[in-house]
Amino acid sequence: MSAGPCALGLDFGTASVRAVVIETQTGVQRGSAVATYRHGVIERTLPGTSIRLGPEWALQHPGDYLEAMCEAVGGAVRAAAVEPARVVGIGIDFTSCTILPIDRDARPLCLRPEMASRPHAWVKLWKHHAAQPQADRINAVAGERGEPFLADYSGRTSSEWLCAKVLQIVEEDPAVYDAAFGFVEAGDWVAAELCGTLVRNACAAGYKGLWSRERGFPCADFFAALHPALRSLPDKLPGEIVPPGRQIGGLTSEMASRLGLRSGTAVAAAIIDAHSAVPAATVVTPGRMVMVIGTSTCHMLLADRHEPVEGVAGVVADGIVEGYFGYEAGQPAVGDLLGWYAHHVAGPGPDEAAVFETLEREAANAGPGGHGVVALDWWNGNRSVLGNADLSGVLMGMTLATTRGDVYRSLLEATGFGTRRILDAFAACEVPVTELIAVGGLAERSPLLLQVYADITRRPIALAASPNASATGAAMLGAVAAGERAGGHASFVAAAAHMAALQPGRVDPDPARADLYDALYREYLELHDHFGRGGTAMMSRLRRVAH
Amino acid sequence: MSAGPCALGLDFGTASVRAVVIETQTGVQRGSAVATYRHGVIERTLPGTSIRLGPEWALQHPGDYLEAMCEAVGGAVRAAAVEPARVVGIGIDFTSCTILPIDRDARPLCLRPEMASRPHAWVKLWKHHAAQPQADRINAVAGERGEPFLADYSGRTSSEWLCAKVLQIVEEDPAVYDAAFGFVEAGDWVAAELCGTLVRNACAAGYKGLWSRERGFPCADFFAALHPALRSLPDKLPGEIVPPGRQIGGLTSEMASRLGLRSGTAVAAAIIDAHSAVPAATVVTPGRMVMVIGTSTCHMLLADRHEPVEGVAGVVADGIVEGYFGYEAGQPAVGDLLGWYAHHVAGPGPDEAAVFETLEREAANAGPGGHGVVALDWWNGNRSVLGNADLSGVLMGMTLATTRGDVYRSLLEATGFGTRRILDAFAACEVPVTELIAVGGLAERSPLLLQVYADITRRPIALAASPNASATGAAMLGAVAAGERAGGHASFVAAAAHMAALQPGRVDPDPARADLYDALYREYLELHDHFGRGGTAMMSRLRRVAH
Repeated sequence: MSAGPCALGLDFGTASVRAVVIETQTGVQRGSAVATYRHGVIERTLPGTSIRLGPEWALQHPGDYLEAMCEAVGGAVRAAAVEPARVVGIGIDFTSCTILPIDRDARPLCLRPEMASRPHAWVKLWKHHAAQPQADRINAVAGERGEPFLADYSGRTSSEWLCAKVLQIVEEDPAVYDAAFGFVEAGDWVAAELCGTLVRNACAAGYKGLWSRERGFPCADFFAALHPALRSLPDKLPGEIVPPGRQIGGLTSEMASRLGLRSGTAVAAAIIDAHSAVPAATVVTPGRMVMVIGTSTCHMLLADRHEPVEGVAGVVADGIVEGYFGYEAGQPAVGDLLGWYAHHVAGPGPDEAAVFETLEREAANAGPGGHGVVALDWWNGNRSVLGNADLSGVLMGMTLATTRGDVYRSLLEATGFGTRRILDAFAACEVPVTELIAVGGLAERSPLLLQVYADITRRPIALAASPNASATGAAMLGAVAAGERAGGHASFVAAAAHMAALQPGRVDPDPARADLYDALYREYLELHDHFGRGGTAMMSRLRRVAH
Repeated sequence: MSAGPCALGLDFGTASVRAVVIETQTGVQRGSAVATYRHGVIERTLPGTSIRLGPEWALQHPGDYLEAMCEAVGGAVRAAAVEPARVVGIGIDFTSCTILPIDRDARPLCLRPEMASRPHAWVKLWKHHAAQPQADRINAVAGERGEPFLADYSGRTSSEWLCAKVLQIVEEDPAVYDAAFGFVEAGDWVAAELCGTLVRNACAAGYKGLWSRERGFPCADFFAALHPALRSLPDKLPGEIVPPGRQIGGLTSEMASRLGLRSGTAVAAAIIDAHSAVPAATVVTPGRMVMVIGTSTCHMLLADRHEPVEGVAGVVADGIVEGYFGYEAGQPAVGDLLGWYAHHVAGPGPDEAAVFETLEREAANAGPGGHGVVALDWWNGNRSVLGNADLSGVLMGMTLATTRGDVYRSLLEATGFGTRRILDAFAACEVPVTELIAVGGLAERSPLLLQVYADITRRPIALAASPNASATGAAMLGAVAAGERAGGHASFVAAAAHMAALQPGRVDPDPARADLYDALYREYLELHDHFGRGGTAMMSRLRRVAH
């Protein structure tokens, strides 16, 4: 079968990169390949040395990205059996905030021999969590100064974000800070490697870099209030801010030959991996919310207006699909919570998957309300809408007759109530959400979860068709960057019409169960507000006992 | 070895009777034997018929008591290798409220052929729970009328008690009520069979029959308000009220020959099985509390004064040891709660004991506070001090790092906090408790439980030495009934000095852990009052979801 024009999607995850080759006009995935990073996640010692890293550190090797990319692209193109010339555009999604310091030539500092032994010269992976003290100070200083950016993040920035990571560098190794020409997202750096042009994608800049289209980055005075040397940080954030999917250049001849593709092939501005699932789930206009349900859940939504929705993790103009405000909210423990329980009852051993299946079946039999057990799903704190990492889990209503299925169901329902609470926050600002689209392994595995969520939220839920939504979204970026005349697409709407799809069938709410859940949701809200809104500070006191 | 004078203790449990022969001067247990009831607990059909019983019914056959008693006494005396003449007194403890209707000759109605097919003519076992509607109405009517007895039971009577059970009889089979000369405790009936004299022991009359030394039984007007026919109930409660251990007669020659004992041997007024453990635990004067820790925990204490201690399950003059007010409090789920959790994590299977052991070890390693998890131990409601069966369990403070050991420990600690709350209620009325004595299988099995309780309550805890405390207590009753001149004892103090003992060593509180627990107890109290004292009615609302 001869292929039509194709787009290449590159999905850079935590341990590996996936390349997919997708026909732009049919959405048919012609080929796919995965390559793991040679050094994986670097948590103990710097590569080739015995230099030890501190607790909560997580680094990567930038060379791994290029090496694995070449391998994956080669594999995907071979599997696709398409002429290189048929690949018209390349899109990238990447974990974030994953940043590295570079020199004036966009060369990673860690690859310069005199810098290789300095941990702070390396790529800081998104889950490098050693900058929590810095994040705490950023939040305090920003709060004191009344920094306007705080409102876009519901008052709290994360230790995972760019500002905390750079502040850690300047405090712990000022020589690296001084030597850095700039600090860039790894996704933007890979895009620059492909086409020679360094830009910053608006998605990562906005959701992880405190940038907004209206205000730009925070002002130099704010950075100086964190650390005197940081006054120069605005100068160390090089690159125009560009919406994901905008063409930023053509593939260099050097990279074209390494990848076996045509030089000049359109390269798109990158996007964060989670956000890449949004267009892949057919969501390129307002009204439908995408939920990426995995260990945690990320909720994403497009809207015409910028509203102060309570508890959002970020609101970014052009942050997901150009022309719209992208809203992000989150629940920090969903699959992790169910996994905790499965492990809790199963103990160590290889049969966790079987336990999971049994629990799902027993929970389905338990019926709504798990015989009177209600939970707060805060095993990893609460992101939206309360924004309090010190909150913790609650189970209540147990009797001697309570079964495992009852408890498991109550945990599942609690995550559904948490989702409904987020929808309520959007509704309070008149940002409409009429339908839910689920993406991710847990959503695929648990029909019960989908039904419970539909019943609790009174909204139909569809599943995205692509088994690798982020990679598909990246390919859509490549197609939009290529443009219609080159065999790509003129807009995300056109790209979605040809390249994105939902699975047939959708899960509709059952009115009787929805009525029952209305009553249980009121109980959830009472617990939510009692423990989460100042009824008691018991949870933060108990967190101190935990250490 | 030639035996000194001995007392015979008869411990009538739910499924069997244990007989023990104990030397009155040394406390040495010379022999012991157990015999099970031929018909066990009758829950489905009446013996020898196909007449079906309703849900929650639990009956027994009175003939079983005598038959099993003869077998057990024979076995115990043979094992003891003592002359029958050396047995100077017989004491009985019995489950309660286990009642039966009798005719004028103290013959069980169910043994009369014309009555044998009527379920209500049979012995209602303590755990016959079919009279809950009756108990609810008793509580409502007594509350409306301001009946003074309610105060002695913290405002709530149980479906297990005499009044509810008789009200069920009169409502469902008035012919049985009419035919009954009296309703008697099975323990009193067995004692009457032994010596020919029917009395009512003050323990069962007080804790289960609404009797008090000051007021007697409730008045006929109250009974008539429940049901017109019940106006005659005071006339159907024959027998003088006698403190446990008081001699009520001598063994009849007929029973002497059936048991192989000497006729005329002193027979003591009976006692409830749980309460029998008090003297056996050396507690015959005020100041030390006995905790019988099993599936539930029963707390018992002697005091000189009658105080309105919050949440007590009963206060009875002469109810345990003559001359003192006996106080009883309770926690309805202790071993049951830990067993629920062990089963919850272990699932069905034969390895629950091993799981229990593992959990105990992991909980010991978890340290106080189980890394920030706090529980309310209300899986079976709360008896003391809140008296609310609609309450249910709570677990809070869980994170993804919470282990099984953490949760198990928090459950154990919650039962300890519940005990401390009971001690606080006594302290508020200036009824002192300086030391705790633990009895029961769970107390024997779990050194961690004893240490946690000592640390939480800041009180030393000792274990009773007798492996069958209730049977030992019954033998002490027999010794006191026999009196000093016959080779028994003049008082409970004397009997305890010779026949009761504690295990060597005691568990002392650790001051550092006790300080930690002070802080955690404040958290427990906050939860306790929020969910239990009107902060929210969520738990009773959720109980309705459960059905």
